[in-house]
Amino acid sequence: MPQHTDTAAQIAAYLLETQAVRLRPEQPFQWSSGWNSPIYCDNRVTLSFPHIRSYIKNALAQAIQQRFPEVQAIAGVATAGIAQGALVADLLELPYLYVRPEPKSHGMGNQIEGKLEPGQKIVLIEDLISTGGSSLKAAKAVQAAGGEVIGMAAIFTYGFPQAEQNFTQANIPTLCLSDYNTLVKIAAEHDYISSDSIEALSKWRQAPEVWGK
Amino acid sequence: MPQHTDTAAQIAAYLLETQAVRLRPEQPFQWSSGWNSPIYCDNRVTLSFPHIRSYIKNALAQAIQQRFPEVQAIAGVATAGIAQGALVADLLELPYLYVRPEPKSHGMGNQIEGKLEPGQKIVLIEDLISTGGSSLKAAKAVQAAGGEVIGMAAIFTYGFPQAEQNFTQANIPTLCLSDYNTLVKIAAEHDYISSDSIEALSKWRQAPEVWGK
Repeated sequence: MPQHTDTAAQIAAYLLETQAVRLRPEQPFQWSSGWNSPIYCDNRVTLSFPHIRSYIKNALAQAIQQRFPEVQAIAGVATAGIAQGALVADLLELPYLYVRPEPKSHGMGNQIEGKLEPGQKIVLIEDLISTGGSSLKAAKAVQAAGGEVIGMAAIFTYGFPQAEQNFTQANIPTLCLSDYNTLVKIAAEHDYISSDSIEALSKWRQAPEVWGK
Repeated sequence: MPQHTDTAAQIAAYLLETQAVRLRPEQPFQWSSGWNSPIYCDNRVTLSFPHIRSYIKNALAQAIQQRFPEVQAIAGVATAGIAQGALVADLLELPYLYVRPEPKSHGMGNQIEGKLEPGQKIVLIEDLISTGGSSLKAAKAVQAAGGEVIGMAAIFTYGFPQAEQNFTQANIPTLCLSDYNTLVKIAAEHDYISSDSIEALSKWRQAPEVWGK
């Protein structure tokens, strides 16, 4: 597959190449939310490809330095964001934490793992943004523990308006390395999907809750 | 605190310095297993200290290269081993995976996250070894998925005979950067504990299941 100079396109190409993203409009996936979906995205697969993992690490670190230069610590959103978050913290030589969706049910009942300093300026790392619900839960946990969430950085977003609305309301600026529309474009360019599929994929993105029902 | 040339001593010192390990023989912790314990160990705290996190990363990577030079991929044991495991994989430029204690209850039901190649020689990364139960669960999941577990590397072990027995039976060679006996020695040297406490700490290590009951 050719290299792309644009980060969003290159990451989309990597997600397709490694099958981290699978597009299957003719045989939809069922998400745990109950939605039918032509796409399943598992960015954790990229961790098994060192050059792609490093590309993502470098892209996240660079974007964070440009957009949130005042960052003092990195927090991964558990579980999918923990590994890539740690790599970014390592590269930026910043303290690292990770945040569970709920407090741990045993041990000390921690929701935040690591040591959060009061007032510390935190950037959260997510692997994937859907409605933004789990990211916001993590952000609230960091805020409740005295941290300041100055931003969120994600590898991929479906680009649903609901997520954007959620982050705007919570006053959390967000950056995403790649997104659904870029992915569909790259998938079509590299013949992962037919032109018929593009229409189905576009319809899903507009109204995922009713698609395929 | 002075620097130690010995890795086991240096890591023990770091765990005490960051309060990743707390020793409280006079006011025991209750572990989720029901045991009373004079020690609570949360190595995740070290992730928030870049120089200590890097020291552990380098020590794990070096030990793995010496002991398991044929390693082809690194697998972190979820959740506590995910971050440090990713850093080791990054440094060694190896594929990375992580392994949940049970299959995920939603989505694709994955127990192993990432892409495991058939016959791949895997070293597991654990943050802490107690009885070895959770590590062995992870090892079995990797084996069931077609991977070959050639070893286990952990940051810290309590040194219980049961763990050693479990790993020997499962034929999994194990290396640990630091251990309980070293920790107690360093804690005494640096006045974290009194000489009375040393005796209590030693008694717990011999018979943790009845200690303090």
